[in-house]
Amino acid sequence: MALKARVLYDFHSENPGEISISENELVSLFSEEELEGWLEGKNSRGDVGLIPASYVEIIKDRISSNNNNGFSSPKVGTPTHASYSQRGPEAGSVGSGGGSFHTSQGSDDDWDDDWDDSSPATEAPRSLGTSPASLYPVTTTLPARRSSSLQPQAKSSATVGRNLNRFSTFVKSGGEAFLLGEAAAFVKDGDRICVVMGKHGPEWQDDPYPFTCTIDDPTKQTKFKGMKSYMSYGLTPTHTNVQVNRRYKHFDWLYARLVERFPVISVPHLPEKQATGRFEEDFISKRRKGLIWWMNHMTSHPVLARCDVFQHFLTCGTDEKAWKQGKRKAERDELVGANFFLTISTPTVPLDLQEVESKIEGFKSFTKRMDENIVVVNTTINDFARKQMSGFKKEYHKVGQSFKLLAQAFELDQQAYSGGLNKAISYTGDAYEAIGDYFADQPRQDLDPISDLLDLYRGHLANFPDIIHVQKGALTKVKDCPAQEGELHDRCNIISCATLAEIQHFHRTRVRDFRAQMQHHLRQQIGFFQKITSKLEDALQRYDSEQ
Amino acid sequence: MALKARVLYDFHSENPGEISISENELVSLFSEEELEGWLEGKNSRGDVGLIPASYVEIIKDRISSNNNNGFSSPKVGTPTHASYSQRGPEAGSVGSGGGSFHTSQGSDDDWDDDWDDSSPATEAPRSLGTSPASLYPVTTTLPARRSSSLQPQAKSSATVGRNLNRFSTFVKSGGEAFLLGEAAAFVKDGDRICVVMGKHGPEWQDDPYPFTCTIDDPTKQTKFKGMKSYMSYGLTPTHTNVQVNRRYKHFDWLYARLVERFPVISVPHLPEKQATGRFEEDFISKRRKGLIWWMNHMTSHPVLARCDVFQHFLTCGTDEKAWKQGKRKAERDELVGANFFLTISTPTVPLDLQEVESKIEGFKSFTKRMDENIVVVNTTINDFARKQMSGFKKEYHKVGQSFKLLAQAFELDQQAYSGGLNKAISYTGDAYEAIGDYFADQPRQDLDPISDLLDLYRGHLANFPDIIHVQKGALTKVKDCPAQEGELHDRCNIISCATLAEIQHFHRTRVRDFRAQMQHHLRQQIGFFQKITSKLEDALQRYDSEQ
Repeated sequence: MALKARVLYDFHSENPGEISISENELVSLFSEEELEGWLEGKNSRGDVGLIPASYVEIIKDRISSNNNNGFSSPKVGTPTHASYSQRGPEAGSVGSGGGSFHTSQGSDDDWDDDWDDSSPATEAPRSLGTSPASLYPVTTTLPARRSSSLQPQAKSSATVGRNLNRFSTFVKSGGEAFLLGEAAAFVKDGDRICVVMGKHGPEWQDDPYPFTCTIDDPTKQTKFKGMKSYMSYGLTPTHTNVQVNRRYKHFDWLYARLVERFPVISVPHLPEKQATGRFEEDFISKRRKGLIWWMNHMTSHPVLARCDVFQHFLTCGTDEKAWKQGKRKAERDELVGANFFLTISTPTVPLDLQEVESKIEGFKSFTKRMDENIVVVNTTINDFARKQMSGFKKEYHKVGQSFKLLAQAFELDQQAYSGGLNKAISYTGDAYEAIGDYFADQPRQDLDPISDLLDLYRGHLANFPDIIHVQKGALTKVKDCPAQEGELHDRCNIISCATLAEIQHFHRTRVRDFRAQMQHHLRQQIGFFQKITSKLEDALQRYDSEQ
Repeated sequence: MALKARVLYDFHSENPGEISISENELVSLFSEEELEGWLEGKNSRGDVGLIPASYVEIIKDRISSNNNNGFSSPKVGTPTHASYSQRGPEAGSVGSGGGSFHTSQGSDDDWDDDWDDSSPATEAPRSLGTSPASLYPVTTTLPARRSSSLQPQAKSSATVGRNLNRFSTFVKSGGEAFLLGEAAAFVKDGDRICVVMGKHGPEWQDDPYPFTCTIDDPTKQTKFKGMKSYMSYGLTPTHTNVQVNRRYKHFDWLYARLVERFPVISVPHLPEKQATGRFEEDFISKRRKGLIWWMNHMTSHPVLARCDVFQHFLTCGTDEKAWKQGKRKAERDELVGANFFLTISTPTVPLDLQEVESKIEGFKSFTKRMDENIVVVNTTINDFARKQMSGFKKEYHKVGQSFKLLAQAFELDQQAYSGGLNKAISYTGDAYEAIGDYFADQPRQDLDPISDLLDLYRGHLANFPDIIHVQKGALTKVKDCPAQEGELHDRCNIISCATLAEIQHFHRTRVRDFRAQMQHHLRQQIGFFQKITSKLEDALQRYDSEQ
């Protein structure tokens, strides 16, 4: 017997296996049992597939659901860093078996075996991966981020009306609570985060002790007498120069902490998970490259680089007790969500709200366009890579083989004076085959890195709608009661400063990364064509020497 | 009412519009009327299309045909230099309308308007273009060359049996008549052609006064007050340094003379004719390139370069009377066919016939393989050219456009420090588009010339089966009556010397041409990739200057 459920919000399917549903639509569910936050069911049009559990309310459970603050499901699926890779059909596809779902508690590494059982915070979700066209959907009530740690601190002391939409990012991030003065926590000096006024507007104060961190080739580790195996990455931060070993699940845990901790900071997405073939060379190399990019963005962010949980992650050695202690401390951190804003110091002169609004609007247009266009770039360069690895290679191979056929025919000639030419033509054939191989190898050097970069930036771009939403929520609230509450303005200023500082940081990093990557690409391409040229010059010489 | 005809020889269709027929098959003809040597009909399998007239015998005319020496048709079509170009479907296709047949009296130029009406010798045919697989068919009785000028001289004084097959190339070329001592003509010293013994065997004596000849871009000429127009080529041979103007039909006339004149010399095929679009730039340029190749092979052949008719063609100025005089002289030349062999002086020591036979066999295998393999090379490089002009170009354009899209998105950013990067990325996009254009232009520089060369050589390779057939015919005859007739041996030696000299010349020219063309190709390719490299270096600099 199929269960009935009412749809709470519009949902547009973005991956194979998902089905689209509309608000208030009645859908049938095949089972109450969720699989990583998804339910299987049928919509009113008869499409069968996966539905995000948090988007529907099961009708037979209606009353108890309503008591549960409107959340119909105890778990919210977080297919967060899926779907940012464009290469091939394998990426981002959601099999109906559900084996390839990507969540912070996915099937990738065996999470529970050497950690505390109680890790509810590892489920702290990000917004569902938004498609480029829906980065900023018309409806701003998409269920996205939910910070359960906020709820205990919510006091009802509002002089300004509360947001009725409990799913608003503004509410869930803690932005509203902070704005209404409901956030309260003790902030140590070490936790203070400074926004300073730079040449181009507010910016995060530079990290006085910048560092980087290398990630070595992962090694395969086993435990339980070889029954279980996993990959371990050696991380060496430059400020300690001591290597620590971490598994992907540790990155994943850290990621969840950071997302929860910093409502208006774009935490770089981790490279996608993969359920199968995780010990295959290609995957390992791709993940490592992704983690290097991720680490680079972490260490170059003045706020993220310095934060306690990241430092714990980078520096804690093999002492199990110390590790667990730091882990618990991070999970019980009070300065998350709304309280994060308490840690921020702003420049003395408050920002002009009009100007802030215009800047935010500009950035919104920017990110929308950037997201749209990098999708095109990514598709194009991945296509180009595929063509080079197949078509281009094949063409040069075919030409090479045909030259060799010519040489073979010429070898039937009994004239002595023909031998040198035959060898030269045969060598030319080899040269063309080699050039074909060069073409096949090249994309790995100069297109894949661009693609990796674009993937990382698509992650950032997917973060910003929520960040902007928090700032806009604050701005709207302040506009509702102008000049009445000085503190409200101050708090809105804090949120605006933090948002603009983050935007500034995004732009700086973007310019740095894209310049570096384009330069790398061009240098690689130049080297590539020079390699071809010298191969051909080599072939040409064979004709001279045999004249 | 359909006429019936009996098929005399196997014919395998090689072009659209033609149908295959087998010896002794009965076919229906739609009309007795020939179109340039072809009849329209239906074979026993029901295929409808064109049949070479000389391959069938119309049944109702049987007796009168037989009286006519077995030739059922007064004209033999000579679709000789068609079908050697591989690029695109337009080349070598034979429309059923017959408008695009290529014969020495084709529809290309209006032949009759300023020449004598009587030019029967312009019909002197070559063998039908043989497909690579059938260069040396098992049956050696393919009707091919017919030298009408031979017949008046045929005397019946044979002590050795005559070849019963009147269609054999051996017979038609005059080889048999010469061998049987039936050739007789006065040979002036100036007509004498020397075969000398070189390092690698018999070879044509070098031309003591070698020359070359340039062919200018053709100019469009009109006559009859603009009613008719034609292309005129300015030829300037280096030994006179005086330009003469010739039309394609003059080349065609010359070609027919040469084929008739030299039974064991491979006269280079003229570039193909084209009925339509003959004033279009591409065609004109292609034909001119073909004529340059042709001229190059003519002037570098010691025998062809020196012969009277070619010299007349190269040196006769605008004096109409002198031109016609030379023309008539050439058409009445006695030293054609069988008599050609009278002009040949051989080295004093006769060749070892066994060795000759083995060399000829080796060359036969060689030409067969070369023909097969250059078909593959030609197809491959033409495919490659097409891919570069379409696919490769498109890919680089797409990448260029996507980089420009990225720059466009980045331009929405209001940060001043981003401007330089945007311009650099946009420039990179332009660079990729330019590289796409380079790829599209390149094949014209380095693949088309190879293709032209291969076309020319396919022509030579199609000539050699007949040449070899003459030599083999002579050898067979001599084997039939060993040591009986010293003169027979001497004459067979002459034929063998001439054949081996021609083979030697072929190899020398081949090695020279392929070496030069491969070098040209590689130099072009090197320049091409260097051009790409400097374009990319240029783009790379934009990033530095804006840092």
